[in-house]
Amino acid sequence: MEKSESTKIDVVETNKERKGKAPLLGTAAPVVATQVEHAKGGPKRGIAIFDLILRIAAFASALGAAVAMATTEETLPFFTQFFQFEASYDDLPTFTFFVVAMAIVVAYLVLSVPFSIVCIVRPHAVVPRLLLIIFDTVIIALTTGAAGSAAAIVYLAHNGNQDANWLAICQQFGDFCQRASGAVVAAFVTVVILLLMVVLSASALRRH
Amino acid sequence: MEKSESTKIDVVETNKERKGKAPLLGTAAPVVATQVEHAKGGPKRGIAIFDLILRIAAFASALGAAVAMATTEETLPFFTQFFQFEASYDDLPTFTFFVVAMAIVVAYLVLSVPFSIVCIVRPHAVVPRLLLIIFDTVIIALTTGAAGSAAAIVYLAHNGNQDANWLAICQQFGDFCQRASGAVVAAFVTVVILLLMVVLSASALRRH
Repeated sequence: MEKSESTKIDVVETNKERKGKAPLLGTAAPVVATQVEHAKGGPKRGIAIFDLILRIAAFASALGAAVAMATTEETLPFFTQFFQFEASYDDLPTFTFFVVAMAIVVAYLVLSVPFSIVCIVRPHAVVPRLLLIIFDTVIIALTTGAAGSAAAIVYLAHNGNQDANWLAICQQFGDFCQRASGAVVAAFVTVVILLLMVVLSASALRRH
Repeated sequence: MEKSESTKIDVVETNKERKGKAPLLGTAAPVVATQVEHAKGGPKRGIAIFDLILRIAAFASALGAAVAMATTEETLPFFTQFFQFEASYDDLPTFTFFVVAMAIVVAYLVLSVPFSIVCIVRPHAVVPRLLLIIFDTVIIALTTGAAGSAAAIVYLAHNGNQDANWLAICQQFGDFCQRASGAVVAAFVTVVILLLMVVLSASALRRH
């Protein structure tokens, strides 16, 4: 941005000087070429559009993960005199954290869409792109933390742990485990898409 | 940065023109000024040096986390006729993953030091900085995943879970739990340092 602004100033100067002085004429042509490139946006606009598409994909996948986990509950078809056997995501604090974290990720992805659109409209704007990289990185950490911790619990639910005397609960609550596993997979898909977004945005910053 | 440079150019040009000299002579001075600025590196070199310091701090913290977790074992002072009660990190697959992941992070941080030094020597080189941002982001995901999953298990070991009938094991294995918790905290410290590194490197890319 700033570079092109200072270039514009030069153009005005050379135009004035062209009337009287010959030697500066040579610099005018490349400056115009740069301005055409600037107006077109070039590969930067393509990257910005791709970034928006990835953002929508990440939103869908994060929303899927949050909803799948939040609606996970299973009531077993048999019960004793005193209580019915049922499993819900909020029985496990890790799954509650997962739902909250994925809800934050979904909200962030919605709020970040305007910034992504600014990057398409003004492909050479540096500040919105930089903001997106920084916050995307923080969101990657949040999503991976939620996905990793939920994965650890899902693994435990599937396999149990003999040394700690924790029994697998998936034999009883099969549907519950499958939905939770699906949510974890969706969260990891979100992480991969977010990583791709940061890599793309960083490479777009480069060609300034 | 660039705005002030272009201002300088204007000033120099007007000074030269005031003396009545040929216009091309005037452009020589700002070019030299730009080269001096370029050689000095300015704030970019400062950021690169800070990046190296943060990298060493992250290395220390990741190494601490890996070693603390890998040496975590506790043998209880009482035993039955058939077996002795002991807990080790490899009883829990999540802790094994934690140790492996943190070892990878430590190895990456050592291997990335030369790239960080290249950024100090050549503050305006874009490719090594971009590579660092991209790989740092991937390593953030790995570290957070390991830290998050280990945190979920440590939480379970401390508090247990009544609904899943998993009992807390920290009453028996107090030292084991404390060391594991310490390792998780060190891993999260590593994540914070890595986040800071990415934010710094991205802002250094900006002023190109």
